[in-house]
Amino acid sequence: MNAVFAEASTIQDRADAQQDDIAVVLFGTGVVGGAWLRLLNTPAGARLRLVGAANSRWQTTDPARLADRRVRDNLDRGGDCRDDAALLAALDASDASIKVIIDATASDVLAAAHAEWLARGYHVVTANKAAAGGALEGWNALADGRERGRTCYGDAATVGAGLPVISTVRRLRACGDELLNLEGVFSGSLSWLFSRYDGTAPFSELLRHARELGYSEPDPRADLSGQDVARKLLILARSAGFDLEPGDIEVENLVPETLRGLSVEEFLQHADALDAVFAERYVTAASRGQRLRYLAQLDRDGAARVGLRAVSEEHPANGLRGTDNLFAFTTARYRAQPLVIQGPGAGAEVTAQALLGDVLALS
Amino acid sequence: MNAVFAEASTIQDRADAQQDDIAVVLFGTGVVGGAWLRLLNTPAGARLRLVGAANSRWQTTDPARLADRRVRDNLDRGGDCRDDAALLAALDASDASIKVIIDATASDVLAAAHAEWLARGYHVVTANKAAAGGALEGWNALADGRERGRTCYGDAATVGAGLPVISTVRRLRACGDELLNLEGVFSGSLSWLFSRYDGTAPFSELLRHARELGYSEPDPRADLSGQDVARKLLILARSAGFDLEPGDIEVENLVPETLRGLSVEEFLQHADALDAVFAERYVTAASRGQRLRYLAQLDRDGAARVGLRAVSEEHPANGLRGTDNLFAFTTARYRAQPLVIQGPGAGAEVTAQALLGDVLALS
Ligand SMILES: NC(=O)c1ccc[n+]([C@@H]2O[C@H](COP(=O)([O-])OP(=O)(O)OC[C@H]3O[C@@H](n4cnc5c(N)ncnc54)[C@H](OP(=O)(O)O)[C@@H]3O)[C@@H](O)[C@H]2O)c1
Ligand SMILES: NC(=O)c1ccc[n+]([C@@H]2O[C@H](COP(=O)([O-])OP(=O)(O)OC[C@H]3O[C@@H](n4cnc5c(N)ncnc54)[C@H](OP(=O)(O)O)[C@@H]3O)[C@@H](O)[C@H]2O)c1
Repeated sequence: MNAVFAEASTIQDRADAQQDDIAVVLFGTGVVGGAWLRLLNTPAGARLRLVGAANSRWQTTDPARLADRRVRDNLDRGGDCRDDAALLAALDASDASIKVIIDATASDVLAAAHAEWLARGYHVVTANKAAAGGALEGWNALADGRERGRTCYGDAATVGAGLPVISTVRRLRACGDELLNLEGVFSGSLSWLFSRYDGTAPFSELLRHARELGYSEPDPRADLSGQDVARKLLILARSAGFDLEPGDIEVENLVPETLRGLSVEEFLQHADALDAVFAERYVTAASRGQRLRYLAQLDRDGAARVGLRAVSEEHPANGLRGTDNLFAFTTARYRAQPLVIQGPGAGAEVTAQALLGDVLALS
Repeated sequence: MNAVFAEASTIQDRADAQQDDIAVVLFGTGVVGGAWLRLLNTPAGARLRLVGAANSRWQTTDPARLADRRVRDNLDRGGDCRDDAALLAALDASDASIKVIIDATASDVLAAAHAEWLARGYHVVTANKAAAGGALEGWNALADGRERGRTCYGDAATVGAGLPVISTVRRLRACGDELLNLEGVFSGSLSWLFSRYDGTAPFSELLRHARELGYSEPDPRADLSGQDVARKLLILARSAGFDLEPGDIEVENLVPETLRGLSVEEFLQHADALDAVFAERYVTAASRGQRLRYLAQLDRDGAARVGLRAVSEEHPANGLRGTDNLFAFTTARYRAQPLVIQGPGAGAEVTAQALLGDVLALS
């Protein structure tokens, strides 16, 4: 009997161990990339060979430096000059049969290279939403790159941070199921804010609290704008077969126009300008027995919107706690009751685990 | 823009169409097998070639009969005599590179053959829980068969009828996550019974109602005994790395000893013998603000039990509706809040879809 998932040495595990090793280049050694490096140094990472790593300033392909558990800290202090080609060359030089590029950055420049990497025969595993969640042309280029390179695009980390969301949509789609409705809460910080907000304390106070706890982005407007939620909805919608452009999603930006041009400091100082609006919306909803939730919604006709909604007590989003995400899929075959996936949809460790899971699934 | 999962003709789909065909033999043309045959005749089944089908009495490997949309009805009226070897020979004769046996029966005899089939190079996709949910020896034999035949065992339909449950456990385990607690409601009929039961109508009345609606087995004791729930817990626990035997699971049988030996008719006549017990348990729970749920529970030390529990309002099982199943995983990395999967965990169509999904995943 055995409590650790990874420890049990079933025959399946032994069969895996005989398979080829996997060579990996890692872009990004921040919150997610750092957590991924820690996972690499566990038994689950044993079959992976790190042949290159980079932050925005430095990189290394030196095996001795890469084998050092402090590779992240070392790269913060210095390394070779940044040169993507040299990192790819390290993959080429490896004799591993599986070659993977992990993108744990938010870089648009790197995202724009994903399709080309796929076409050149590198698998790409990403937490970076910019490629799949950008213009439709970029989404189609990914499919084209996969086909040309006969490679895979691991995107489990881009939506729900590894909750089995995109994989479920793909599986249903492959089986010919029809998406009738998708509804959910796709932002950990907005989930926390609106499950906490009950009108007693001002909204701006809660916002500052969320920031202190690390639940929101350093600039909370990145969450409140709804753009990140819209991007996740776009990725899910496209995975379900809807060819949407970013502009096709109706987005409610919770930041009033007057606060959009300010610096982060200024915004935080003037955040109490939000309080009256939310207090009023809260009271209106509460008077009908409803609660506020920042929802993403997709209909079967492709209509997509994200914004603050008042939901009734029976709504699955009503019971959300903490920073939990929620994804409720109503399909032709999950019709009477939706298929619901719920849980932490952000966090360094689960996101890093999603990246590792996609890498391991390649073999 | 495109509402049907299966219709969107992305480049990925085209790449798939170029791949080899899949030859399939189907055992069982009942509720689940019948629904699977309907799925076969949709675009999602286009890459599959049915080369043999059988119920318990008849079989056919005749291409003309198999191509007939009424193959199920035809087999009910007659066919070739049952002979498993002849069905496997039809797989051998196929030039498809992927050869799959689907088990949509509850037959112990067929389940006992799964490991051997795997070892002989046939992939096995099953809704039949008897092999993976029986003695540990049988579970280990499956792993051995997979290794010897370099084949896959598709078991998504055995727990949650295709909710992404076993796949999630496997993925977490592969990444070295540690299961701290698993809790859930694994039976559609017990979920319906206890989310409905509020003490106003006698329990036995609800039981008859569930049977009429097709939510329970023809003999409701098959559900009430907890054996089916225990078997699902066993499969999940083993998938998480716990080498449990059926006897390691503590099972609360909701059928009193006096009603166990009766015929189905007699049992239904005397089912009101259950009413007083449940009424009392309901009142006790309600007086504490709790509700009754038939829960499956697994702890990190491998302690496993299934039985009726009183849960508080905050418990994820409290909000269950209809025949929904619930699976809540607390792990080292999903610790503050569990990863929760919820939705219909039974039904012909979703179970058949789970079988099809496992077949398509082989390529
Ligand atoms: N945090 C989460 O919970 C979470 C969940 C799901 C998805 N994500 C996504 O994961 C990605 C990373 O998030 P994070 O929280 O780890 O961000 P972060 O802490 O800001 O780290 C970003 C990392 O990317 C590096 N970088 C930027 N441009 C680069 C380039 N051109 N080449 C190489 N490295 C580059 C940065 O280098 P420097 O060190 O030089 O700045 C930094 O190491 C983002 O796309 C985010 O949306 C995050
Ligand atoms: N129904 C659900 O919602 C659901 C969900 C998940 C899993 N499952 C599982 O799926 C399996 C099938 O369920 P079901 O509801 O479809 O049962 P069912 O309607 O009773 O059908 C069982 C089928 O298996 C056939 N069969 C029995 N022994 C056989 C043998 N040796 N060779 C060939 N065929 C044989 C039967 O043949 P005859 O027609 O000759 O009797 C019948 O066609 C069960 O293991 C069940 O636990 C069901």
